[in-house]
Amino acid sequence: MSSTTSRRGFVKSAALAGLGLSILPSGIVFSKNKDRKARLGFIGVGLRGQHHLQLALQRDDVEVLAICDVQQRMIDMSKDLIKKSGKRMPLVIMEGPYGYRRLLENKDIDAVIISTPWKWHAEMCIDSMNAKKYVGCEVMVGTTVEECWQVVHAAERTGMPLMMLENVCYRRDVMAVLNMVRQNLFGEIVHVQGGYQHDLREVKFNDGKQPYGGGVEFGEGAFSEAQWRTQHSVHRDGDLYPTHGIGPVAMMIDINRGNRFTELVSYSSKARGLHDFIVKRGGENHPNAKVKFKLGDVVTTMLKCANGETALLQHDTNLPRPYSLGFRVQGTEGLWMDINNGIYLEGKSKKPHEWDNAQEWLDKYDHPLWKKYGNDASGAGHGGMDWFVMHAFVEAVKRKIPTPQDVYDAVTWSVITPLSESSIHLGGETVEFPDFTQGKWMHRKNEFALNDDY
Amino acid sequence: MSSTTSRRGFVKSAALAGLGLSILPSGIVFSKNKDRKARLGFIGVGLRGQHHLQLALQRDDVEVLAICDVQQRMIDMSKDLIKKSGKRMPLVIMEGPYGYRRLLENKDIDAVIISTPWKWHAEMCIDSMNAKKYVGCEVMVGTTVEECWQVVHAAERTGMPLMMLENVCYRRDVMAVLNMVRQNLFGEIVHVQGGYQHDLREVKFNDGKQPYGGGVEFGEGAFSEAQWRTQHSVHRDGDLYPTHGIGPVAMMIDINRGNRFTELVSYSSKARGLHDFIVKRGGENHPNAKVKFKLGDVVTTMLKCANGETALLQHDTNLPRPYSLGFRVQGTEGLWMDINNGIYLEGKSKKPHEWDNAQEWLDKYDHPLWKKYGNDASGAGHGGMDWFVMHAFVEAVKRKIPTPQDVYDAVTWSVITPLSESSIHLGGETVEFPDFTQGKWMHRKNEFALNDDY
Repeated sequence: MSSTTSRRGFVKSAALAGLGLSILPSGIVFSKNKDRKARLGFIGVGLRGQHHLQLALQRDDVEVLAICDVQQRMIDMSKDLIKKSGKRMPLVIMEGPYGYRRLLENKDIDAVIISTPWKWHAEMCIDSMNAKKYVGCEVMVGTTVEECWQVVHAAERTGMPLMMLENVCYRRDVMAVLNMVRQNLFGEIVHVQGGYQHDLREVKFNDGKQPYGGGVEFGEGAFSEAQWRTQHSVHRDGDLYPTHGIGPVAMMIDINRGNRFTELVSYSSKARGLHDFIVKRGGENHPNAKVKFKLGDVVTTMLKCANGETALLQHDTNLPRPYSLGFRVQGTEGLWMDINNGIYLEGKSKKPHEWDNAQEWLDKYDHPLWKKYGNDASGAGHGGMDWFVMHAFVEAVKRKIPTPQDVYDAVTWSVITPLSESSIHLGGETVEFPDFTQGKWMHRKNEFALNDDY
Repeated sequence: MSSTTSRRGFVKSAALAGLGLSILPSGIVFSKNKDRKARLGFIGVGLRGQHHLQLALQRDDVEVLAICDVQQRMIDMSKDLIKKSGKRMPLVIMEGPYGYRRLLENKDIDAVIISTPWKWHAEMCIDSMNAKKYVGCEVMVGTTVEECWQVVHAAERTGMPLMMLENVCYRRDVMAVLNMVRQNLFGEIVHVQGGYQHDLREVKFNDGKQPYGGGVEFGEGAFSEAQWRTQHSVHRDGDLYPTHGIGPVAMMIDINRGNRFTELVSYSSKARGLHDFIVKRGGENHPNAKVKFKLGDVVTTMLKCANGETALLQHDTNLPRPYSLGFRVQGTEGLWMDINNGIYLEGKSKKPHEWDNAQEWLDKYDHPLWKKYGNDASGAGHGGMDWFVMHAFVEAVKRKIPTPQDVYDAVTWSVITPLSESSIHLGGETVEFPDFTQGKWMHRKNEFALNDDY
């Protein structure tokens, strides 16, 4: 080996070590070119997919090459969006549930955005990686432990990056708190909380025409998510939607990057809310009043971490309640909670033993990404965070670099659902948390949102 | 049996059945006389005991017949209080740790108030019941499962009522919410939360002169609670102080009265706060900086109930944080949380999916006891609730009736500590919750604070 080669090899390794990329996506060729466009295909253009589609159409650095879906109504709505955008009409595929495979045959497509019912995610992710596409997948990427492993194996085998589009990691307050955590404002983190506490009754039931409410139908007689999501509440008892709650706090305690979840236990309350809703809105003689829902109204999950932190997650989607993700980030110097918009920092808060209004701190520690892109994001969905998650994915695709949330994050956050089901099924037993990184967590570095780039 | 006797027997049973007294204190003679005085003895007149003593001295319906303690400083402070009150100086006993047994020999004493270190509670409760005294005991009544059973057996054997002085059951907002629960405002209760989240670092450490802070001593070199309470943080990992969090919500879901806790699991975070505090305030060379504290900074516990509710408890006393008991009471129609002072009731709150300021609801449903006695209580400790717990105990003693919180409540709330220790010790195993009522929970009725009497 010539000294030049050696030197080049050293520079490359050192640079990568600096990035903490202890594993590298091997399927992509690295590029410094930020100017080329990301050429996307959309698998699933239901309401959520259309939302992503719209964000993509607004960007100058994205070309939409293909869309596919199984329903004419969704295809028509998407075509309208594309027409209104003035962009070129892409290839439109409606060839049944496996029509997406034809989309994957298109060699010009760099990346796919998957927004389909949960049960399709793993298979579609794996097929897409096999076709050498970057994958941006809606939460979650697998519904069983086995599926999560299959996704990991596919990512490792193909070397293709997979990013679960966990938008809450980009919520403005969450990113400010991440910034504060990194600047050690909370001291050593000891305990975190999150959850999904959202009255979904009008998402789980509708009249078959409108997406939200208006009736108590689900399954075939319903529209949009109620067509498929509600079945999970009939058949499964567990934390069915953990990723919005766990993703943001997992990033703060370096999960899969020097830390990992080691075990988990869940308890589930009685199930009353969905049946009550059907009876209230549809009457006790409505056929759906006979359905037995397995999902407890409030599912609580505790997790433990290799570095000694505890995490608490709550899932609460069947009862009347205001929306709250219930975040709490607590360390040796103080804590943040979102429910009361409070921050307390010892020696820094205005008064001892009293909450400061969190907003002052959140403004002061506004994340560089939000400072730079806050205006672009405003108007995008979910308070702007959808813009950021799309931005991060597109930047990774354009530059051919790893995505800031990777396959290990995706499966770690997703697997909480089947693990919580097991724990509940076993009567509240603590179950082991799989190490999807297979030891790599000990060496990986946390690179999520380190600067104002993506 | 003559028909008269039979009739009288029937009337008595029916009346008692109406009261739901499926077990009756057999050691006391029932009385309708509300006018006689309650004659009290005080076992332990440290700072907490003195607080109770003061409340007792303020009442016209109480005579203090004896006090005892093991420390001259506490005796002197108590004598000052008594002198200032203008009441007669009681018998004063300072004869070592078992001096209280001489107090119990006094036949004129109806009832004792026990405010001593935790490890003494069970033994003192049992001795007091054996001496035919009503027992009002500070939280908690036993530190092991076995001790809790011994307390139950003593109560059942002697027929003497025991009330753990769980004051938070009488907090004004808690009682208003209890009132709302009973009027079905929240619908069927599905999930409850509570806890003890209180920065106790200046309780656990002081300078040996003042009760709170000023130094990092504990044990023999410290004063007041730091003399003994801190040892529990050295040697035990569990929810060390569950009763303020669980008592109020247990009453709302009829625990031991048609419902019971069936199982429990606890996770404990790493322990950092107490060591950090010693180093911050005393320097890293202070001898106490070498102490290894076993108590995790945040201990989280989940419980399940026979009727399908879940409960969540948090214990968080080692870190800088504002005080919060973290209550949440959630049913099929809505929920209350204290951290954000919010109530949401479907179809009744001002706006869908938005919190009402809880205060409007709490005012509207102010409990009859607070309406009647709020003025008397104002100025008493802990926002008035200490007045109510003393009032309830004294009324029961005067009338020779069962106490509104009984021995089963006391042990059920106390036993969470040793159960959570077991669960953590076993690596997060769900452990069985003992049924201290031995089946009586199925028939007992909830009579706590049903009206404006006591």
